[in-house]
Amino acid sequence: MHIVHTIKEVRAQIKLWRNEGLSVGYIPTMGFLHEGHASLIKKASEENDRVVVSIFVNPIQFGPNEDFEKYPRDLKRDSYICSSNGAHLIFAPEPSEMYVQNNSTFVDVENITEGLCGAKRPGHFKGVCTVVSKFFNIISPDRAYFGEKDAQQLAVIRKMVIDLNFNIEIVGCPIVREPDGLALSSRNTYLSAEERKAALILNKSLKLAKASLEAGEKNPSEIKRTIIDELSKEPLAKIDYVEVVDSLSLKPIDSINNKILVAIAVYIGKTRLIDNFSF
Amino acid sequence: MHIVHTIKEVRAQIKLWRNEGLSVGYIPTMGFLHEGHASLIKKASEENDRVVVSIFVNPIQFGPNEDFEKYPRDLKRDSYICSSNGAHLIFAPEPSEMYVQNNSTFVDVENITEGLCGAKRPGHFKGVCTVVSKFFNIISPDRAYFGEKDAQQLAVIRKMVIDLNFNIEIVGCPIVREPDGLALSSRNTYLSAEERKAALILNKSLKLAKASLEAGEKNPSEIKRTIIDELSKEPLAKIDYVEVVDSLSLKPIDSINNKILVAIAVYIGKTRLIDNFSF
Repeated sequence: MHIVHTIKEVRAQIKLWRNEGLSVGYIPTMGFLHEGHASLIKKASEENDRVVVSIFVNPIQFGPNEDFEKYPRDLKRDSYICSSNGAHLIFAPEPSEMYVQNNSTFVDVENITEGLCGAKRPGHFKGVCTVVSKFFNIISPDRAYFGEKDAQQLAVIRKMVIDLNFNIEIVGCPIVREPDGLALSSRNTYLSAEERKAALILNKSLKLAKASLEAGEKNPSEIKRTIIDELSKEPLAKIDYVEVVDSLSLKPIDSINNKILVAIAVYIGKTRLIDNFSF
Repeated sequence: MHIVHTIKEVRAQIKLWRNEGLSVGYIPTMGFLHEGHASLIKKASEENDRVVVSIFVNPIQFGPNEDFEKYPRDLKRDSYICSSNGAHLIFAPEPSEMYVQNNSTFVDVENITEGLCGAKRPGHFKGVCTVVSKFFNIISPDRAYFGEKDAQQLAVIRKMVIDLNFNIEIVGCPIVREPDGLALSSRNTYLSAEERKAALILNKSLKLAKASLEAGEKNPSEIKRTIIDELSKEPLAKIDYVEVVDSLSLKPIDSINNKILVAIAVYIGKTRLIDNFSF
């Protein structure tokens, strides 16, 4: 497995592979990889001849008061996870390699970015779509892999790919959880031992909601109430949002008829965590 | 030469060419082709193994009171111009082929779209950048050809290609003029005989400005005054803008030191014409 830091190097490698007729799978990441990322890399290596992982903490998708500076980074550890799960190339550019000449071009998806994380993190998805477009243009993969934990991100990327005619198949992969149910996230590393325990309330509240849906509940407000009531029992938890939305439009719904997404964002101490399920 | 109307067909043809190792040049147009387009097609056919021309009157780059409906269309005539200048494929999609599923993704270049035509036609360049991104993703050309008559468009596309890392060389081609100096434009067809004559004032005023620059004038305001004075002599002409800007940033300048762009937009009757030169 190679690690490269420039666009020129990654393009040269991919050109060689393309000349051999090899297919390319791609996983965009911000590094500090965990088993969730590993599952994406594994799946990509099953479905493609070659697998590229980008590791880039993208400054333009962080708000001014967010955790860009302190976001965890560990390229050595990441390399090990990539290579042991079947990756062939890591592309780990510096911000100066990705953003040159006063970058002033942005890709924006409207409508489905309005609610959920989009409402709470203005400009976040514009930053995500812009950087993912750039990586797509640099790497030109056949398939790109995204985790379902970032459900809105996955929906936004799918919409962007359709709207801008990227010739890339987007593959969504299930959330990977710790044995006790906590969804894996690079941000879990911010949690103290006490907070780590408190964070279980996210998955626990979603499980209650799912049980209620399975029992036949059709009122989204009742589902939200179930989650909010459960989250409120945890003193370290502060709700950012609890939403029941249509799984395609991501718009709030009045009653549950089609496929829905139940998505929550909760601060545990200062750490913002997200979790979700589709039903 | 083939004419295709679907994305599927154009991708299939380009894939065949790519498998043979052939290079692809691309000219995006709105059809009703003239010698200006012909010069782009000719140049592309000199520099590439295969040449694709898209013909698409892009609804999202027209403002609500602009000429989308009446924009001239003539695919038969266009086909002849394409084939006789060396094109191999025309891609002429319907709007419904290009914009599906409530298109909500847009590509926008900030800063250099603020002045000139961008100031007068809000949303125009967002529409241009979005559709050109789509065509770039559909066709994946090695090179794309744009006329210098649309000087701001060329600058915006160059910036977009750098910022979003499109792996495409952008080739700018000189303005083609009628023997009497009128810059070729599909919109010239709107002009009455009297307006056609009046339209010569655009090129005439720019020639005076160029002579003044060649004589050593360093004050942009004087250059603008020369042009405005000349344009004012023509009763059918109504100035939209007269600007002297830095040729890279497209920002107005106080004095002339670096390469500049002198750009004008003038209504002749109801027809809006543009012209420019670099110095």
